[in-house]
Amino acid sequence: MPEELEVDHTERLRALIASAEGKALDSYLESVPVGEVPRSIELLEEEERRRLVESLPIGTAARLIDQLPEAQAVEMLRLLDAALVARLLAELPSAEKADLLGDLGKKQAQAVISAMEPEEAAEARALGKYPDDVAGGLMITEFLTFPESSTVGDVVQELRRKAEQYATYDVQYIYVTSPDHRLVGVLRFRELLLDLESRPLRELMLKDPVTAPAMATRDELRALFDRYPYFGVPVVDDSQAIVGVVRRVDVEEAMAEAAEGDFLRSRGIVGGEELRSMPVPVRSRRRLAWLSINIVLNLIAASIIAAFQETLAAVIALAVFLPMLSDMSGASGNQAVAVSMRELAMGLIQPRDAYRVWVREIAVGAINGIVLGALVGCLAWFWKGNPYLGLVVGGALCINVMVAVSAGGTIPLLLKRLHADPAVASGPILTTITDMCGFFMALSFAAALMPLLKSS
Amino acid sequence: MPEELEVDHTERLRALIASAEGKALDSYLESVPVGEVPRSIELLEEEERRRLVESLPIGTAARLIDQLPEAQAVEMLRLLDAALVARLLAELPSAEKADLLGDLGKKQAQAVISAMEPEEAAEARALGKYPDDVAGGLMITEFLTFPESSTVGDVVQELRRKAEQYATYDVQYIYVTSPDHRLVGVLRFRELLLDLESRPLRELMLKDPVTAPAMATRDELRALFDRYPYFGVPVVDDSQAIVGVVRRVDVEEAMAEAAEGDFLRSRGIVGGEELRSMPVPVRSRRRLAWLSINIVLNLIAASIIAAFQETLAAVIALAVFLPMLSDMSGASGNQAVAVSMRELAMGLIQPRDAYRVWVREIAVGAINGIVLGALVGCLAWFWKGNPYLGLVVGGALCINVMVAVSAGGTIPLLLKRLHADPAVASGPILTTITDMCGFFMALSFAAALMPLLKSS
Repeated sequence: MPEELEVDHTERLRALIASAEGKALDSYLESVPVGEVPRSIELLEEEERRRLVESLPIGTAARLIDQLPEAQAVEMLRLLDAALVARLLAELPSAEKADLLGDLGKKQAQAVISAMEPEEAAEARALGKYPDDVAGGLMITEFLTFPESSTVGDVVQELRRKAEQYATYDVQYIYVTSPDHRLVGVLRFRELLLDLESRPLRELMLKDPVTAPAMATRDELRALFDRYPYFGVPVVDDSQAIVGVVRRVDVEEAMAEAAEGDFLRSRGIVGGEELRSMPVPVRSRRRLAWLSINIVLNLIAASIIAAFQETLAAVIALAVFLPMLSDMSGASGNQAVAVSMRELAMGLIQPRDAYRVWVREIAVGAINGIVLGALVGCLAWFWKGNPYLGLVVGGALCINVMVAVSAGGTIPLLLKRLHADPAVASGPILTTITDMCGFFMALSFAAALMPLLKSS
Repeated sequence: MPEELEVDHTERLRALIASAEGKALDSYLESVPVGEVPRSIELLEEEERRRLVESLPIGTAARLIDQLPEAQAVEMLRLLDAALVARLLAELPSAEKADLLGDLGKKQAQAVISAMEPEEAAEARALGKYPDDVAGGLMITEFLTFPESSTVGDVVQELRRKAEQYATYDVQYIYVTSPDHRLVGVLRFRELLLDLESRPLRELMLKDPVTAPAMATRDELRALFDRYPYFGVPVVDDSQAIVGVVRRVDVEEAMAEAAEGDFLRSRGIVGGEELRSMPVPVRSRRRLAWLSINIVLNLIAASIIAAFQETLAAVIALAVFLPMLSDMSGASGNQAVAVSMRELAMGLIQPRDAYRVWVREIAVGAINGIVLGALVGCLAWFWKGNPYLGLVVGGALCINVMVAVSAGGTIPLLLKRLHADPAVASGPILTTITDMCGFFMALSFAAALMPLLKSS
């Protein structure tokens, strides 16, 4: 797509916002190609984004919010006053509503809930009870229940009568309840077509349906959907009353978000998603918080070099290899971290498998350590013509790669056991260990072989 | 869960496999708690895994394969002969079948297709035409079409007649075709309940339905589902004939897989997923391939230090700070890489936005560079009591952090423009640039201020 066309998009939006023509904005946004919308809006100034939402008819504004990536949508909502946010959220499905409310600051979320209709507010509070990543936080609350004594005919009639209201429901099942409100069965929607008008649901329904407790975790839900081919599973509270439906698609979406979050946190974006449209001081502060911890860890590793300054001064060629030693060991260890995190996510290993993981890592680490150590050792030897320099550098790298894969493979398991976040903490802990260990080995080997090295 | 119970799981499986009791294995596997299955199988030996699949009734074996994480399932299939794999795949839904076939080696995939029933083989080949991550690769081929002249009554009767066959279909829509096989409309399943038996579909259907071309990319599909609230969208070929249905859940699953893949590749697991149950030589070779590239890049950076050996020997304290300079700059740059990759994935930026990204990065980089540079500079000053050492180290870090965020923010965009994979390449390229630049600045600043530094 030619660049000029693109610029026109944003310029046109800008002009329409300036003239506050809600209708024209509406139809223009509709004409922006799918996938171009988030960026067109990102290019607007904060004030323009605020006025854009304010100018649009409420339904369109809500659909726009719903269509943006969640982080961007939350940034938009932050610009608006509580009453408008409440009206926007009222237009959205329950799951999106709860997600967005949860991501707003506590203060704004409170203000928004206060501005809601009483019924809406009660629903929002109910959904807000659950953490984001358990069944109660992922579920939708638009579902259909009928008493077990209803007949198929009753259900079909009810559906016809309220067709309008149910049109937005993602219904594949009908949930059947006992007189004391327990969930007792499930009926597939299509079974209503089977010409059994007068039969009560209790005779047709699947009894003892698979359910998820409201506090089931994301991983438990994924395992559930891996085992059963259902599109959605009813979520029940302690008294077996149905409180919502968690759908396969909600779980997959949560898995994608979790993986994206792991990626960000493992690269030092912690404390929430960062968009470049956020204020510079916020972005800088969050990034610095993580970098500061790294400085401390780096100092610990550097103190090893500081303790060996004399050795290093005597064999200055070693200084050329220290950053390489640090980097190669870190890279080897990070590969092991990645595999452990992935196997944890797939349920192939658990924290108690540390020994088994280590056995499988050290086999690879020994081979790779020997290969890399030999390679770098020979380089050092030929460069300075001193085999002992090669021995020191190559030997340290060889052993350190084994240390690195051992640490890298097991650290995520230990962090998981301590209920810490492996994505954030594995990298910094790993490199601190490998740096300390690597520098210590290279420099103490050199100190031991000093007479032989000095002749170079 | 107590550890002993767990061990019993695998031991029990082992005993049942040894006695090859298919039925007992079947019912035992059913009793293993959801989520424990992948690990119980991972703990088995290769031979045992092979015999497990061979002993189970074919339907159960297929359901087991379907329930495992894809990478693990593929490893299981690799152990089996082509005829058995063909029979297993025949039991699976079309999308899973295509995924698994695509992940088998080319040779085994060919053998499996040859062993399939002709109809199955044709379907597999048709799905195999498309890459994994476009609509054609993500779609399912179980869907319902009816001619536009059919009535609601016809449809309901057909559904009743073939209720058994359609029971496994994930049907929310009925697709309506013209006499020349073009897709002309969509009808929601529930509209069949609206008591309009004799009305032809063409009067009820939604005309000009939203469709996805078979080559629509994952990101395009995500944008499509962000805009429209549908559960699935028909996939059409060039002649507007429907070839499949891509569901929201398939796209979310693909997004999760993509994010998980990015995570792995960004940590040096390239050339496919690694499971620790894979043979050591394969795992070692794949990891080494990536590490070797890193060695070369490291050598380039180290050559800068080598060129300044005399300077370094004169001010050996600098050697303490070089690894820290490398690590802190790399960490700062990686934060920028993460934000760019995330914004790319969300559609907030495009390759042509490099300048805009840089402007937003340098603002953060300047603040963080000054803060980190001042911090580390003061440390160096107080440690050796020489303010010039602080100036050299702090100054180099300050400027290098700005270089790092500039490079980190823009490299993923440039790689994307070159159709290279930002997840694999951004990290190594970034650290090579920041290492070279950082080492050069620190050492040439030191060379320039040598008389002042030596007095320390």
